[in-house]
Amino acid sequence: MKQIYNFSAGPAVLPKEVLIQAKDELLNYANSGMSVMEMSHRSKVYETILQEAKQDLRDIANIPDNYEILFIQGGASLQFSMVPMNLIKNGKADYFVTGQFAKKAYEEAKLFLDAKVVASSKEQNFTTIPDVANVEIREDADYVYICENNTIYGTKFKELPNTKDIPLVADVSSCFLSEPIDITKYGLLFAGAQKNIGPSGVCVVIIRKDLIREETFNPTPTMLKYKTYADHDSMYNTPPTYTIYMCGKVFKWIKEQGGLVALQKRNSDKAKLLYDAIEQSNLFKCPVDPNYRSIMNVPFVTGNEELDAKFIKEAKEAGLENIKGHRSVGGMRASIYNAMPLDGIQTLVAFMHDFEEREGKIHV
Amino acid sequence: MKQIYNFSAGPAVLPKEVLIQAKDELLNYANSGMSVMEMSHRSKVYETILQEAKQDLRDIANIPDNYEILFIQGGASLQFSMVPMNLIKNGKADYFVTGQFAKKAYEEAKLFLDAKVVASSKEQNFTTIPDVANVEIREDADYVYICENNTIYGTKFKELPNTKDIPLVADVSSCFLSEPIDITKYGLLFAGAQKNIGPSGVCVVIIRKDLIREETFNPTPTMLKYKTYADHDSMYNTPPTYTIYMCGKVFKWIKEQGGLVALQKRNSDKAKLLYDAIEQSNLFKCPVDPNYRSIMNVPFVTGNEELDAKFIKEAKEAGLENIKGHRSVGGMRASIYNAMPLDGIQTLVAFMHDFEEREGKIHV
Repeated sequence: MKQIYNFSAGPAVLPKEVLIQAKDELLNYANSGMSVMEMSHRSKVYETILQEAKQDLRDIANIPDNYEILFIQGGASLQFSMVPMNLIKNGKADYFVTGQFAKKAYEEAKLFLDAKVVASSKEQNFTTIPDVANVEIREDADYVYICENNTIYGTKFKELPNTKDIPLVADVSSCFLSEPIDITKYGLLFAGAQKNIGPSGVCVVIIRKDLIREETFNPTPTMLKYKTYADHDSMYNTPPTYTIYMCGKVFKWIKEQGGLVALQKRNSDKAKLLYDAIEQSNLFKCPVDPNYRSIMNVPFVTGNEELDAKFIKEAKEAGLENIKGHRSVGGMRASIYNAMPLDGIQTLVAFMHDFEEREGKIHV
Repeated sequence: MKQIYNFSAGPAVLPKEVLIQAKDELLNYANSGMSVMEMSHRSKVYETILQEAKQDLRDIANIPDNYEILFIQGGASLQFSMVPMNLIKNGKADYFVTGQFAKKAYEEAKLFLDAKVVASSKEQNFTTIPDVANVEIREDADYVYICENNTIYGTKFKELPNTKDIPLVADVSSCFLSEPIDITKYGLLFAGAQKNIGPSGVCVVIIRKDLIREETFNPTPTMLKYKTYADHDSMYNTPPTYTIYMCGKVFKWIKEQGGLVALQKRNSDKAKLLYDAIEQSNLFKCPVDPNYRSIMNVPFVTGNEELDAKFIKEAKEAGLENIKGHRSVGGMRASIYNAMPLDGIQTLVAFMHDFEEREGKIHV
C-alpha cells in the first residue's frame, strides 16, 4: 500500500488503529452477525455504542453534568442557524468575525436576530485574532459568538473573551479535542466531526442545559431545536449511526493515547517542528501573527504563486496529499490534526528543505 | 460468523456484496492510500464517487434531466420542514394522513403554512389507504403530500392521487428503488437512505427543477434551502462523504441485479411467499387491507400479545432479528427490503410454521 500523508483540512486523516478496527468489524460487529451500518438504532447493541460514545467524550473533554452532548446532522453550517434560532431571547447577538466561517455564521444569524460584529480581523486579512480584552459586548446580547480556530487562516483564539454572564458560543470544529478544554467557559460549543472526531456527517454540540429552551425563534423546525435532540438522546429520528460509531472509536483512541493532555503535548511538538522549519527557511513564510497561530492548521507561502503550485504538485507526487491552501487564500496549508503522525510532519519538513535547496537559489 | 437475517425497518440489511467491497476498500480506496472517510470532499477522487453515485441513481430510477438529485442530511424528518419552507407560494398544502410519519409531516407543515388533511385512514388504524380518486384537493394548494409506503403499518399507495397541475410530494423512504418508478408523476420525492439506499445519515431528494426556488419561507436557514444544494451540487458544505459512497455502491449493486424491474420481480416473489404463509396460517394474521399491502414491510400478529412476545423472542434466538413491530402498534413486522435474500423469507416462513405447530394447538 502506497504510503501517503494526508494534510486535508477535513474530511481529514483518521487514526490508522481506528480504521483497522472498523475494517475488522465491518461485516460482523461484536458477533452480532451484522454490520453496524445495518443495525436498528433502537437495538440494544447500537444503544450501547451511542451511550459509550457519549460517556467517552464526556470523560476525555471533562464535560460537566450540567452540559448535554448532542449529535446533530447538517454540519457546523447548520449550527449557524440553530444557534440564533435556539438562543434568541432579547433578539441580539454579538459576533467576532475572524474568517469566512465566522462571517457566514454572522450573516446567517441576521436572518433571525440583530447580529452585530463587535470585533473583526478582516482588515488584517484574517491573519490575526482581535484583542479580546477591549471588546464592547452589548449587555443584553443573547450570546457572544466566536470561531475559535480558523481552519482557512490558521489562527486561533489564545484567550477567550470574557463575556461575563452572557453565554459564549464557539465553533470549535478544527480545534476540538486537540488540547484540554474548560467546557464551563462556554454556553455552547460545536464541532463538525470531520477534523478531530470522525467522518463527516455529524456535528457534536455541547450545550449547557439551561440554554436548551422550549421557546425558540418562531417558527423553528422540529429538527432544528436542541430540545428535540436533548429530549430524545439524539434519537428523535434515525441518527447517522455508523458515523457516530466511528466517532466513538476515535474517542476510545484518544483515551488510549493518554487523553487531551498527551495529545496537546504531541500536537504542540508537531506544530513547533513545522513552524520552526518555516521560520528558518528563506523560501517559506507563514503569514499568520505569531501570537495567534493554530496548532492544527498551518498555512505557508513562498510569495510566488507559480512556485506554490510547483511545490503542491511535487509534494503530491511525494505522497504529501492535500497540502494546497483553501481556494480563497491560495498558498499551502498543512492541517495536522490529532491523527497526523509525527512522521508526516518530519516527511513534510524534509521535503520543504529539499525543495528549497532545489528551488530557493533560483527564486530568493 | 453467525448467520442471521435482519428484518429491521431501518437502518436495515445491506447487500452482502456491498459490505464486502466496503471492507476491502476501507483502508485504501482505489490505491489512494486513504480511506474514503479521510478524503477531502473537494478532491478529484471523491468528486468522482459523488458524480458516479448521482449518475447511477439517475440511470436506475430513470430520472429525467429536468429533475435534480440532492443529498441532504437530517433524515426524512428534516424534509417535513424543508418541503413547506421551499414549496410555499400561496401558503396552502394538502396532506394525506396515512400513518405516523405522514401525520408528523402534516403537523410540521402547519408551522409554515395552512396545511389541510384531505384524506386519512386514521379511523381504520392506518391499516388501509384512502381512495385517491375522490379526494378534493384545493385548486390553489402549493402541493399535495403523501407518504407512499407506510413503514410502521405495512401499507402502500397502489395508485397516486391525480393532483392535476399541483406538484405531488412523496415520502418514499421505505419503497424507493424497490420497483420501477415514474418520476415525472412527482414534483418532489425524498427517501431516507437507511432502507433501500445505504446507511443512515443522508436523505435523497429528487426535485423538479422549476420547484427549486430562490423565494422561500422567510426566513429559511441556508442549509434548509433546496437551492443551496442544487447550486453547489450538494457540496455547499461538507456532505456525509462516506455515507454517500456507500449509497453509490448500493446503486451499482442494483444495476448488477438487473435494475428495478428485476428487483420488483424478486421483491414481489419474496412478499408473496410471506403473505401466503400468513394467509394459510391459522395462527398469524396480517391486519392490513389486502388492496394496499406493502411489499417492503409486512406486519402480522397472533392476536395474543404474550404469544407475539414469545414468537419475537424465539425468532431472535433462531437468528431472525428485529422482527418486532413498531412500538406504537405492537405485534410483528418483517421488513424485507431489496437486500433481504429469499433465504431470509424462507427461513422466517419455516420458523412461523414450526412455531404454529408447537403453539397453535394451544392457542387457536
